[in-house]
Amino acid sequence: MNLRDHIRDVPDFPKKGILFKDITTLLGNEPAFRQAVKAMCDPFRNTSIDKIACIESRGFIFGAPMSLELGIGIVPLRKPGKLPAKTVREEYDLEYGTDALEMHVDAFQKGERILIVDDLLATGGTAAASAYLIEKAGGEVVSFVFLLELAFLNGREKLGGRECLSIIRYDDD
Amino acid sequence: MNLRDHIRDVPDFPKKGILFKDITTLLGNEPAFRQAVKAMCDPFRNTSIDKIACIESRGFIFGAPMSLELGIGIVPLRKPGKLPAKTVREEYDLEYGTDALEMHVDAFQKGERILIVDDLLATGGTAAASAYLIEKAGGEVVSFVFLLELAFLNGREKLGGRECLSIIRYDDD
Repeated sequence: MNLRDHIRDVPDFPKKGILFKDITTLLGNEPAFRQAVKAMCDPFRNTSIDKIACIESRGFIFGAPMSLELGIGIVPLRKPGKLPAKTVREEYDLEYGTDALEMHVDAFQKGERILIVDDLLATGGTAAASAYLIEKAGGEVVSFVFLLELAFLNGREKLGGRECLSIIRYDDD
Repeated sequence: MNLRDHIRDVPDFPKKGILFKDITTLLGNEPAFRQAVKAMCDPFRNTSIDKIACIESRGFIFGAPMSLELGIGIVPLRKPGKLPAKTVREEYDLEYGTDALEMHVDAFQKGERILIVDDLLATGGTAAASAYLIEKAGGEVVSFVFLLELAFLNGREKLGGRECLSIIRYDDD
């Protein structure tokens, strides 16, 4: 099975001229979704990892089944105001304005090794913020893993040389 | 293992006087998370289900691993403006104002049998909206399943007699 065949192109979303890579068609096909999760887990089966950090909200869709596949607990990185206990916060720039990610300060112990999961690496702003957040809380980022990478947006350049894997790479927009 | 022991009480969230049931402590403990997902799947192993609908965003955390455990694809029910293709929409009342859920119109075929998944049944507004949305698109709601139920909020009364299961029930606030 070629996972690319299960990703749908939707033109002009979120705005005119953007060709959006829609993963909902993959999610609706369980064998394709299973293969995607397996492909995201395979590089890490012999890696020492203490927690899987998943970025709200599509990161939850991949990080949660990876948790059970690898036997490692998850840490949700959430939009502001969603987590009930004491949090640490990292702001990042959007095209217009700023956004932020929050994480519980007790989500892991200092020195723990963290794998960061999201569905998509685009410009890299959210991914970079998630690494800063984890490192601010004393964690070590083992790697990022994404199902999709829009390589033409050069998001990797924002990740400061940290290990970064993606399963499906698009080289042209 | 008693799953209740892995749920943390956080006082005064989201506002003073509310005792919030925090699942992040369960998510960080993989054996507890695994047992929770298994408990949510067990009642449905011999049920005919075509798709699992997961409510954004904590519903994704349970619906996604249930998909792989039961071998059934997922349909994300999302906050407005997140889904790229043509959607159907259902609004619902909040304490102040309204919110809405959206779903791709082609997320399933008419007549398909849908299991609705979320982490928490509270007042039932979001859950009821998710059922209306699925039925508007021609689906049949087989059941709801929640990890937690705040039974004292009587959310079940909003679900119109549709089947509804929860794993951990709190009878007092």
